[in-house]
Order: sequence, then C-alpha cells, then structure tokens
Amino acid sequence: MLTYHLDAKAKTPLYEQLYRAVRADIMSGTLAGGDRLPSKRQFAEHLRVSQITVETAYGQLLAEGYIKSEPRRGYFVQKQLLMPPPAPAAPSTPSAAPRPDDGCRFDFRTNIVDTECFPFSTWARLSRAVLSEYSDQLLRAAAPNGALELREQIARYLYDFRGINVPADNILIGAGSEYLIHLMIQLLGRGRVYALENPGYRKLYQIFAANGAAVRPIPLDGSGLRADTLAASDASAVYLTPSHHFPLGTVMPAARRAELLRWAAAAPDRYIIEDDYDSEFRYSSRPIPALGELDRAGRVVYVNTFAKSLAPSLRIGYLVLPDALMARYRERFSLYSSTVPSFEQHTLAKFMRTGGFERHINRSRKVYQARRDALLNALAREFTGLPYSVSGAEAGLHILLSVPNGMDEQTLISRAREAGVRVYGLSGYYTAPAKPPRATLVLGYAGLTEPQIAEAVRLLRQAWK
Amino acid sequence: MLTYHLDAKAKTPLYEQLYRAVRADIMSGTLAGGDRLPSKRQFAEHLRVSQITVETAYGQLLAEGYIKSEPRRGYFVQKQLLMPPPAPAAPSTPSAAPRPDDGCRFDFRTNIVDTECFPFSTWARLSRAVLSEYSDQLLRAAAPNGALELREQIARYLYDFRGINVPADNILIGAGSEYLIHLMIQLLGRGRVYALENPGYRKLYQIFAANGAAVRPIPLDGSGLRADTLAASDASAVYLTPSHHFPLGTVMPAARRAELLRWAAAAPDRYIIEDDYDSEFRYSSRPIPALGELDRAGRVVYVNTFAKSLAPSLRIGYLVLPDALMARYRERFSLYSSTVPSFEQHTLAKFMRTGGFERHINRSRKVYQARRDALLNALAREFTGLPYSVSGAEAGLHILLSVPNGMDEQTLISRAREAGVRVYGLSGYYTAPAKPPRATLVLGYAGLTEPQIAEAVRLLRQAWK
Repeated sequence: MLTYHLDAKAKTPLYEQLYRAVRADIMSGTLAGGDRLPSKRQFAEHLRVSQITVETAYGQLLAEGYIKSEPRRGYFVQKQLLMPPPAPAAPSTPSAAPRPDDGCRFDFRTNIVDTECFPFSTWARLSRAVLSEYSDQLLRAAAPNGALELREQIARYLYDFRGINVPADNILIGAGSEYLIHLMIQLLGRGRVYALENPGYRKLYQIFAANGAAVRPIPLDGSGLRADTLAASDASAVYLTPSHHFPLGTVMPAARRAELLRWAAAAPDRYIIEDDYDSEFRYSSRPIPALGELDRAGRVVYVNTFAKSLAPSLRIGYLVLPDALMARYRERFSLYSSTVPSFEQHTLAKFMRTGGFERHINRSRKVYQARRDALLNALAREFTGLPYSVSGAEAGLHILLSVPNGMDEQTLISRAREAGVRVYGLSGYYTAPAKPPRATLVLGYAGLTEPQIAEAVRLLRQAWK
Repeated sequence: MLTYHLDAKAKTPLYEQLYRAVRADIMSGTLAGGDRLPSKRQFAEHLRVSQITVETAYGQLLAEGYIKSEPRRGYFVQKQLLMPPPAPAAPSTPSAAPRPDDGCRFDFRTNIVDTECFPFSTWARLSRAVLSEYSDQLLRAAAPNGALELREQIARYLYDFRGINVPADNILIGAGSEYLIHLMIQLLGRGRVYALENPGYRKLYQIFAANGAAVRPIPLDGSGLRADTLAASDASAVYLTPSHHFPLGTVMPAARRAELLRWAAAAPDRYIIEDDYDSEFRYSSRPIPALGELDRAGRVVYVNTFAKSLAPSLRIGYLVLPDALMARYRERFSLYSSTVPSFEQHTLAKFMRTGGFERHINRSRKVYQARRDALLNALAREFTGLPYSVSGAEAGLHILLSVPNGMDEQTLISRAREAGVRVYGLSGYYTAPAKPPRATLVLGYAGLTEPQIAEAVRLLRQAWK
C-alpha cells in the first residue's frame, strides 16, 4: 500500500501532509490516471492516522479534481493529469542594473531632485493628521479622477501661479506622468500620429512606442517646435515642453505659441499636449503663460507632476483636460479606478492648503537658483581661456554647456569621467535626421551642493584644458 | 496714449497689472501686430507710475514674446499673435454619475468590500512607524518593480498560502490590477489575440479594448474555459479566474488546469494570465493550487491585488512573471517608475511582516463566511415553496441565485427594486453568442450585515412569490 512518512509534530497538519504527498505522486506520475487509492479506513490504519485525516486529505484532492470518487468502488486518480515538462533553462534574470560605480565623485545627471529640500517633518505631521482626521474614510476608493479636495487645491495653484483658470472638474489625478500619458493616448486615440520634439526626452519616445502609438520626431529651431513643420507632417497631436524645453532649455515665445494654437484650431480633433514639467523653477522673470491659459479652442491638454517639485516617490501627477475630452474620459474611462492612494491625495491637499507647498517651492527655487549661480560663476571663474558657452539657464534644473575646444562630445565625457565627474552628451537626445550641435553637454545641477559644483567645475577645467 | 487704470492698493503689483492689461489688449487685437508702444518714460508719466514699473512690465512682455524691442525705435507689438477664436460651446461636463438613489434599502452589489473589517488603527500605527523609521528615505523613488521588502513579503505569502514558490525578483508591484493589465499587454504585445472568459468580468473587456488589444470571448462549460475551444481560436494568451470564476463561481478542476497548461506549452509564446482575485476567501476547503504553482513551462502570469483582501483605496497589486517575461520587462519596461508610493509599500510590508495581514484575512474570511451562511440560511428559511437554486457559494464574495418562478431576469430585478432591494442579472456578463441561463442573479453579500441580509431575503421572497 502507499506509504508516506507523516510527522505528527510538524507545524503542517497531518491531513495537509498527506494531501501534499499524494498530490506530488500524482503530479510526478508515480500515481497514474485510473490508479485506485486505498480506502479511507485501510489507509488510516496503514499510516497510523485517524480516518478523519485521510478523509480530509481525500476531500481536498477531490475538490481540486486530482482524484474522483466512484460509488461503491472507491477513489481513483483522475486521468490526463500529467503536467507539461519543464521548460528548458530560462535565461537568467539580471537584477535591475545598478548605476555603474566608476568612482566618479560628482554627477551632473538631470533626473534628480534634492530631497533634502523637502520638509519631511511637516509632511509627516500632516500625514499623521490625515490618518486621524480621515480615519477609515481613507479605505474607500478615491473618485476615479482623484479626490475633490486635491483637485481644488491644484486648480487654485494653477490659477495663482500659472494663470490657468480651470474648474477642479477638469483635473484628472494619476500615478505620475507616465501613467497619465498612457491614459491620454487612450483618450486621444492610438490611431493618430503624435509629433514629439526632436531633440527631446528619450523616455517619452519609448513610452509612446510601448503604448503602440505612432510618433514623428519634429526638428526644432531657436524658438522650439515649428508650427509649419508640424503642419507639413501627418501628426494630429503634438507633445511640447514650451516653458522650458528638455534638454535645450528653450522658452517658447508667445508668437510661436499662438502659431501652434492656430495649428490646433485649424482642423477638428487636433491637440497640443503641454508638459509643464519644471515650470516652478524659473529664475529670471515670472513664468511664461502656459499654452493651457491661452487656449480658447479647447485643444490643449496640460500635464504636470509633483515629481520634480516635491519628490519622485510621491507618484502624483495630473492632467487638465478641455471639456470635450473630459466628457470623453467620463464616458469611456471613468471605469478605471484612481491610481493614487486616498491617503497621499489628502496629505498633499492638506500640504497645499496650509501653504506648505508654496513655501517649499519658494525655498527650493532659491536653493536651485543658488546652485545654478554657483555653476555659472564657477564656469566664469575656472574656464578663463577655455572657449565655452551656456544656454537654457533661465529656468529648470539643468543647463547646456558647449565647449568648442577641439574635443568631440565623447572625448569631453570620457576625459571628465577620468577626472571623477560624470557629464552627459546632448547628442543622445536627438533622433536622425536632426543633428546635435558639436561638443555640447547637458549638466543637471539639482543634485549637487554649491561647494560640490565648484569643485566639479575645477576638475572639468583640468580635464578639458 | 494707451490708458489703463492701475490700482496701487491692489494685492497684485503695479507692473503685473500693467503687464496683464497690455497683454489682454494684444490678445484681443486692440493692440495690433506692429503697433508701437509708448516709451517707458512717457508711459510712466502718463500712468503716474514709476519708470521701473513700466520697465518690468515691458521686460515680461519681451520675455514672453508679446512685444519686441527695436534699437533706437522703441517697443512694438509682435505680429501674428491673434489667438484662434473660441471654440463653439463645449458639451457640458457631467459630473461622475452618482449611484442612483432609488430608495433601495439593500444592495447586493459585488464590487464592494467591508472596510469595517480593516484594522485601521493598526494600519495607522504602522504608518506612523514607517514615517519615523524610514523618514526621508520615503522620498526616494521605489525600484521600478517595487520595494524589495514588500516583494519579499508577497513571495512569502504566496508560498505559505498559495503554495507558489517564486523569488521576490519575479514580482512586479503596481497601482492596481488595471494598471498591471495595461503593463502586461505591453509586455505580451498588443499584436496578439487575447482570449477572455465568456461570461466574464465586463470591465476586463473594456480595459483590453481601451489598450488596443484584440479579444476573443470563449464560452465556458461547467469546469470553466475549455482548452479545446481555446486551441480552436486564434488566441495566444488567455485571461482566467480559475480559483473562483467571476461571476459563475466555478472552481476550475485540476484536470482542466492541466489541459490549459498543456495548451500553453504546446506552442511558443503562449501565455495564461491567472487572476487570483478572491482566492483568500475560500470557505469549504483550503485553496485550490494556483496555475502559477503547477506551471513548469514558464507560461503563467499570476495577477493579484490587495483591493479585495485589504481595501480598494490602497491601489496595490502585483504580477508574478516567469523568468523570460521578467527579463523582457527589465529590458524594455523598467524605464517606467513604480506607480505605488514608497510609503504605502513599506507600510504594507510591515503589516504583512508583523502578521497583521494574515490576521486580517482570517478575520474577514470569518465575517464573510458568516454573511454567506446568513444568505444561504435565509434563502432556505424564506424561500420555502419558491423554486430556487444556488451555485458558486464555496468561495468568494458572491453567489449565483436562480429563481425559475416564471419571471424573467428583468422582472425579478424590477420587482426586487420595488421592494427596496437591488439585485443584479447574470446576463449582463455574457457576450453573444453565449447564452445566459434564465432568471439568474448575481448576489454580492460582502457589503451587507447578517441582519440586513435576512431582511433583504425576506423582501425578495415577497417580491417574487
């Protein structure tokens, strides 16, 4: 008779041990389809367990369809249970590649914010208050388009700081801009062609491609993306960073904005997606009006997130949709649950309502401006005799640095790396046929302190002289 | 000369008032392209403001490209600034439709969990602890596939409760199952055909459609989706709820599972997506082994969320990917940031590590089982003389109730509604050509207490007698 070693002292109950043992034999083929199992009484005596143990194990095997019971005949193994053979060894799964440690002391990367600026103790205090005040209300799913309190705060912020006057009802909150772009592609349709800035944010190209949307890279001039080039393409929607182009740093002038708005209004179903990603960080004058403010035809979708202005880990972004798109969203996509936990939404709403957000923006703008100034000053001080030019420094968290000293971009980068400083080439943001300017680097300064910046620039000077 | 009324007592600075006034005139066409603006000195005298006020306003208009400066000639309005005319009145934006208040006292809806069961005070305590312990670490973005601590806890949970042995590295955390399905479609490809259960969860059809993926509804038999019907279709991936079919409640037997696994292993690039959505709530025996446990060929993608087992507002779900898909994810999609805030991930990890999750599941299983029993008992008690049958009651949070009393589904629903009880028809879950059984209702009992259930069943009896 079938014999298994069952351990009465084990944490797993006896019936469970027996169930697992029989199942393993069925799955391995040791017990074949049609094989008869011992009767409950015999099996219990044989294994020295109670009959209820065998009964429970058999019950489970029956429920799962491993065995079947035939009246007056007993229990039999089900046929056709053989599992497919194991697959050939799968390719090994690499862990997410860590940032290579090449011993560099300084890193001018762009996708970083200084979380030191973030008033964590205030945030933690508000979080605790939200837990007490809202209590188990927090367990209820937020409205699909986000908590009303947060949408109202965002509407007020947009009015006060960006001059955009939109009702809270036109705001749609989601788990970061990548999710929101995905939603927007569903809303505007996958069938259309999307124009993207060239050069531009590389990840954007990947996100559109991953969402199955066709993209056209559109070359830029000194004012940004040209409306006539756009009109000559087959695109019916365009993704722009007019406040501060990434990576060129261009601020799109009003005339160009008007041209693009006319392009959008000139045919039905054309849209401009305005990514206002670092509009909070503008140093030389007040922010340029958003396209979303100037739009009279309902053709601008405004996108922003709190990833740069607060912290990347919060994963809160928002879309502002014109009425017609908001109606389409409600009709077709409000089936999607909100992707942001109620708790974070209420905490952020409280942070904005109590002025914490405005104070934080003002404070971090000063910190970043001081870093930008430290960078520009260090360049002016150290780079005497070395040809260089800077652009895109009026806003944002990075500058462009051209160094026409005869080295090409790759040489500049590798020399800098040998000196312990990581810098990034501009050419990586270009898609053919657009051609990058020679020997130009993108320097993000948000992650380095003023003394670090001064020292890094000194090292760059030595590397490139 | 241009005349504006500027108010020195207003909160808005004078230069800002002037800037706005001039800009408004440019945008409305009152000031046309090429028009010359007054000199700074003249304008300041005329408006009785300081010259620095005009200079600042002009500076802003220059920066934004509304005007241009010509050396020795003065300031001119930029040409081509006319904005497109406003769009015709947009359709009014309806607010998200509230649940109709038809005066019903009881609602047997299915998409609800009882948040009363949730140990909110424990959760709040752990939240506070996470805020203190992790402090500003919480501001850093989580790994794209989720915090390791949470993935380890999920791996342990899957091993202990579902018998699935997977490394934490194969787990991918995201903001709810809808987001994860979207990600999975990107991973498996939009070009293939996806088989869905018919009847099935309606929202799933909409989500696949919104993601641009082709779907085939596959009819079911008493054991669930048939492998031979699947093999005869052009689908290369299938979405299943084998633990407890929604809405039929079928538990897929092991033999059928083996057939489906063989189907997947029989050709390259075939996949089974196993949605284990309410496997925690199984009353009659221990949970059926997941397909993910039986899979030897690396063809099963396992999906689950904490929406039912904890609270819908938490927005935390996960995929378990076979090695080859995990490698594909890392290669192509780890560019996506994690959609779940670090804070929630760490709080949930702590809740699981300290046993809170297991206790909560055990407690809520008992609560729901008592409600299910109350429903079955009330039916047995009240429905004497009324023909009825129940199925799908072994697990989950809903049952199917057939009432062959001569009324059709719609009559049963409207009579119930007149009596103050909202019930839902099964036919809404079917896609043609599959035909629903007659006069069958889906009753979700998670949102009603035992006394409410007893009273609701009494009312149903009167409505249907």
